[in-house]
Amino acid sequence: MTTPLAAKIAREYGTPCAVIDMDKVERNIARIQAACDAAGVANRPHIKTHKNPMLARMQIAAGARGITCQKLGEAEIMADAGIDNILISYNLLGDEKMARLAALQARANVTVTVDNLTVVDGLIKVPQMSGRDLPVVVECDTGRKRAGVETPAEAIELARELSAWPGLKFAGFLMYPTETGWPEAQRFFDEALAGVRAVGLEPEIVSTGGTPNLRNIGKLKGGTEHRFGTYIYNDRMQVAAGVATWDDCALNIYSTVVSRAGPERGILDAGSKTLTTDTGGLDGHGLILEHPEAKIAKFAEEHGFLDLARSNTRPNVGDVVRIVPNHVCVVVNMMDEVVMVRGDEIIGTLPVAARGKLR
Amino acid sequence: MTTPLAAKIAREYGTPCAVIDMDKVERNIARIQAACDAAGVANRPHIKTHKNPMLARMQIAAGARGITCQKLGEAEIMADAGIDNILISYNLLGDEKMARLAALQARANVTVTVDNLTVVDGLIKVPQMSGRDLPVVVECDTGRKRAGVETPAEAIELARELSAWPGLKFAGFLMYPTETGWPEAQRFFDEALAGVRAVGLEPEIVSTGGTPNLRNIGKLKGGTEHRFGTYIYNDRMQVAAGVATWDDCALNIYSTVVSRAGPERGILDAGSKTLTTDTGGLDGHGLILEHPEAKIAKFAEEHGFLDLARSNTRPNVGDVVRIVPNHVCVVVNMMDEVVMVRGDEIIGTLPVAARGKLR
Repeated sequence: MTTPLAAKIAREYGTPCAVIDMDKVERNIARIQAACDAAGVANRPHIKTHKNPMLARMQIAAGARGITCQKLGEAEIMADAGIDNILISYNLLGDEKMARLAALQARANVTVTVDNLTVVDGLIKVPQMSGRDLPVVVECDTGRKRAGVETPAEAIELARELSAWPGLKFAGFLMYPTETGWPEAQRFFDEALAGVRAVGLEPEIVSTGGTPNLRNIGKLKGGTEHRFGTYIYNDRMQVAAGVATWDDCALNIYSTVVSRAGPERGILDAGSKTLTTDTGGLDGHGLILEHPEAKIAKFAEEHGFLDLARSNTRPNVGDVVRIVPNHVCVVVNMMDEVVMVRGDEIIGTLPVAARGKLR
Repeated sequence: MTTPLAAKIAREYGTPCAVIDMDKVERNIARIQAACDAAGVANRPHIKTHKNPMLARMQIAAGARGITCQKLGEAEIMADAGIDNILISYNLLGDEKMARLAALQARANVTVTVDNLTVVDGLIKVPQMSGRDLPVVVECDTGRKRAGVETPAEAIELARELSAWPGLKFAGFLMYPTETGWPEAQRFFDEALAGVRAVGLEPEIVSTGGTPNLRNIGKLKGGTEHRFGTYIYNDRMQVAAGVATWDDCALNIYSTVVSRAGPERGILDAGSKTLTTDTGGLDGHGLILEHPEAKIAKFAEEHGFLDLARSNTRPNVGDVVRIVPNHVCVVVNMMDEVVMVRGDEIIGTLPVAARGKLR
């Protein structure tokens, strides 16, 4: 079965093709902004999910306080499009990046992140080049064992050290608590806050993150903002986490069934170079809306292996199906553009402008 | 420890950055072409690995018989750059693709692939639009359960059916045997060959594929060509398969250690948006040449999680390390360009011209 819209998408753009429903996008933006407003916490959406300035502007127009980027290259794309108040939630290192960061300061207010002194040592050159103060938040690890200092004592020391440099300004704390890690984050933050206050510093930004943390919004006493990323599109992971419904999933991959060589199997024209091998910890690689019992069992680069053993209805060769990906952020990053629709009407395309900005 | 070249790459381009050693690229091209020549089998390199016309031209100059593409969009990029004799080893479906395929025929000799009659039904329009015959190979499944008809009888029937259409020309068989599946491929091919001959057809192309099949080259009696892809760069999978050495791995991802928050762990600036989550069935996500005992244990989108528990020497924040990826074909597809070097000298950049050509 191919919906009329799917047939139209295939005819105009070919498959595989990412399609976003702007009604759902707008609803997702409004819903999470309302949740932030209700909790008294600013929203600083992470643009890694959509990588597009127009969508960032829509998030800001809805009430977001600036944006979050993970890479300097993403921030450059956003600043070039006139987006201001950019938090880069990542340790930036190397002279090449320091020069770009200084140049970026000429066109946007940028806050950067540190979890160690080597990064601070690099950043001290930036205000010298740009002539502008550089606000810096200290990243704190509260259970994820990714980046971030492991103890409040280290956070306090790093805040003290960096604020001693002319041009670097301690701006606050960055955290990414796990869904169950908020009590730990509170303890960490309370101790770190007391410590920086004792040396005369005051955090302006206390930032938490993650769409799966929706139900924890407002829980961190002293938190000022939350970095929601995936919420703009949602995906199978967010549904599994209980923070979105299938109807909130605004992005589908439209894919053609190209082979049905055996009765219980088929091949989609979307493989790991479209849907990626990122399972997000789930079984299978996406939900096929027309065939929810079908399993996307594995991938070759351009082949999606369909296991149809448990499907009562099975797609024919030539059917165009709609897939909700497991992890939408990495899928969007595979393509140069997405097609915008409203209901059954195609509006146009939107470039994934910061796609592939690795650095 | 950062090598002088790594320091130079980081200074000029920033990290993460894909770097290819052209001496190794040329050696890989020559070695596999020599293996094909010795086996009396043509090489039809699969450009999905490098996605660049200059490298395709180098493969052809070394003796390759045309190229293989998986997507029409890849073939368009190659044809636009003057590459001829293109095999698209994939079922193409939909009017949008038929129109593009007909247009492509005006600028290159193109052979396409089918494993079912629905695809044939679409292809019959192409010669009507282009005014040129369209050669078609029949894909045969010989154990991988991907695309390809499952029996010789189906292959014979499909060859007969397609060759009955004016403008469609039966061109032969396409197979992708597993490393142990060559006896099965031989039986399949012998029966299919006898069958098509009985109806007056003769295969011009009998194509096998896969770099891990290097040791099987020449084993299929009647085989005319092999589709080598990964061999131009090689990767951790090819080393594991015993068809390449570490020294044959021509592409490294240069990545900076950005965090060392705990003594036994660290963070690389290359995550799943650079190295992908495609493990290729191996443990860990790449070999770090400077720290072979370190394990890239998992990824966030822009974070590579380093497990240093078994490392005697541990990298410092700011170190730039070189990584041999598990599966190089999907990694190259993440970036717009690769940097070319010869030994310690930077030559320039090469666009991944067909990157992101999903369709």
